[in-house]
Amino acid sequence: MQTQKLINDGNLAVDEMLAGILAAHPQHLWRPEHAPRAVIARHGPRPGKVALVIGGGSGHEPTFLGFVGKGLADAAAIGNVFASPPPQPAVDAALAANGGAGVLFMYGNYAGDVMNFDMAAELLEMEGIEARTVLTTDDIASSPVREKRRGVAGNVFIFKAAGAAADLMLPLDEVERIARHANARTFTMGVALSSCSLPQTRRPSFDLPPGEMEIGMGIHGEPGVRRGPLRPADEVTDEIMDALLAEMGASRGDRVAVLVNSLGATPLMELYILHARVAARLAQAGLSVHKVLVGPYCTSLDMAGASITLMHLDDELTRLIDHPCDCAMFRQG
Amino acid sequence: MQTQKLINDGNLAVDEMLAGILAAHPQHLWRPEHAPRAVIARHGPRPGKVALVIGGGSGHEPTFLGFVGKGLADAAAIGNVFASPPPQPAVDAALAANGGAGVLFMYGNYAGDVMNFDMAAELLEMEGIEARTVLTTDDIASSPVREKRRGVAGNVFIFKAAGAAADLMLPLDEVERIARHANARTFTMGVALSSCSLPQTRRPSFDLPPGEMEIGMGIHGEPGVRRGPLRPADEVTDEIMDALLAEMGASRGDRVAVLVNSLGATPLMELYILHARVAARLAQAGLSVHKVLVGPYCTSLDMAGASITLMHLDDELTRLIDHPCDCAMFRQG
Repeated sequence: MQTQKLINDGNLAVDEMLAGILAAHPQHLWRPEHAPRAVIARHGPRPGKVALVIGGGSGHEPTFLGFVGKGLADAAAIGNVFASPPPQPAVDAALAANGGAGVLFMYGNYAGDVMNFDMAAELLEMEGIEARTVLTTDDIASSPVREKRRGVAGNVFIFKAAGAAADLMLPLDEVERIARHANARTFTMGVALSSCSLPQTRRPSFDLPPGEMEIGMGIHGEPGVRRGPLRPADEVTDEIMDALLAEMGASRGDRVAVLVNSLGATPLMELYILHARVAARLAQAGLSVHKVLVGPYCTSLDMAGASITLMHLDDELTRLIDHPCDCAMFRQG
Repeated sequence: MQTQKLINDGNLAVDEMLAGILAAHPQHLWRPEHAPRAVIARHGPRPGKVALVIGGGSGHEPTFLGFVGKGLADAAAIGNVFASPPPQPAVDAALAANGGAGVLFMYGNYAGDVMNFDMAAELLEMEGIEARTVLTTDDIASSPVREKRRGVAGNVFIFKAAGAAADLMLPLDEVERIARHANARTFTMGVALSSCSLPQTRRPSFDLPPGEMEIGMGIHGEPGVRRGPLRPADEVTDEIMDALLAEMGASRGDRVAVLVNSLGATPLMELYILHARVAARLAQAGLSVHKVLVGPYCTSLDMAGASITLMHLDDELTRLIDHPCDCAMFRQG
């Protein structure tokens, strides 16, 4: 059965989306001539500032380009749906955002992205621009080994911390250190209730029978840790929170930031029902909640489901998470 | 077939959602003791200020309670899913928000809401509090007669204008005049691609066969103006824009605010593809775009589909639409 989408030609979906985004947010975003897949912050890049360049496949909106703006990322490289951008858009984005203090590439840990951004970094080095990379690896369901994990919704907090550091004009070494530190303290796990479907095919991209859920599924449909009948929201939340809290290893009195994220088709009512349980569990664990985000932050096209992210704050991360930002799709005063 | 939802008991969905919202946004929202279905802005109500109280059924989040906050609404009365709140929550909300300068009730034009809020207004008058009402009627597909139309996503702009007027400490007469003026200049039309399903039943609440769309469908599944096979996004947008532009009757050079809204399950990629066409049509019509919102602003649970709203701005409305607001789910600097 075909799923229904408000699109034109599936092969043009990303370019048409970009046209719609640039038309909607001219105060926030611009695109260099001859660089159709690079999006740059209107206010943000400036001389002496480390350029934070993020990116990856499309279909996760507002990730990535919704987080380009003053106080957060300086630019994004935009791939096709669920596909890494080739090196050129990453180079274009970096060149347009370059302030002479080096470039930090940040993106989720996926083989295609690593290959393409590494090539972009080499191309930049050849032009005399120092480029470093921090991979996000917050998806605790994707591997027992931190370095092998994928990057998912926790990106929001990790990019936010690094973006704030860069906006504060810290040098490349410091922005890189903070980015790694933020990533190491961020933990995400999701649950899928349905497949998404690609614009090109309009068919489910994997099989998840009605009535089933998959805990830990990745944002491109990568296998999770457990499939079974859908359980009540509180039980699902508990399963995820048990895993997150065990990984995080926080002490009573520690502070956290929380993100309850929609994978695309799951509306706010359900996210807030999940959050009621998340809040109860954090209170039970004696953790203090410094910031809460609830909504679609890192989606998987029209997938039904949600993810929960905890960032284990310290004083430094708290300050950076509170730093103001003004992006097309994320704003904080 | 049951649709899947991340909920517990369907009958508790609204109360659990409210618990999750209050836990997530304590800086923005509070709830009076003994008033479980009234939500009040933490900063907003103050002596001498007209209290703007909005409300209606749940299932449209972030409408209504996401728009409670400084610079927008002072309080909201929360009904069950797709059901008007009874009079008491509206009275509770108004009493908690009352600053001695009168209360303005604003909500969509639905029979149940009119009955219940009118009773609330009478109860307030008995306590010596002046209460007036402005109904929103922006859904142009719902009737040829403005006064009979339903209120839908245009609420965001209409509430925003009235909330700004109240925040500027204008008197009740003026806030009411502005609210009516804002409503008269706001026009919305939607398209549904799937039914939503109620938490209590988890079954589609109406029948919309796969491959079909319904233009003009209401946010509770009220019949639209035309059902037919789903067309490409540009054609759907053109059909809606033709109707909106004809109703609005703007002249070349006039300014508009635009909202491309998800009905719940439709992700940002599709909304921005619609917006690309909206922007092209507005440029063609010689209209200048002052503000654009894209995202889930007035949903219908997990319904797939979208709506487009145009507000025909004048100098007064432009100023009010630009007024800062700080709500749990809507922020503007």
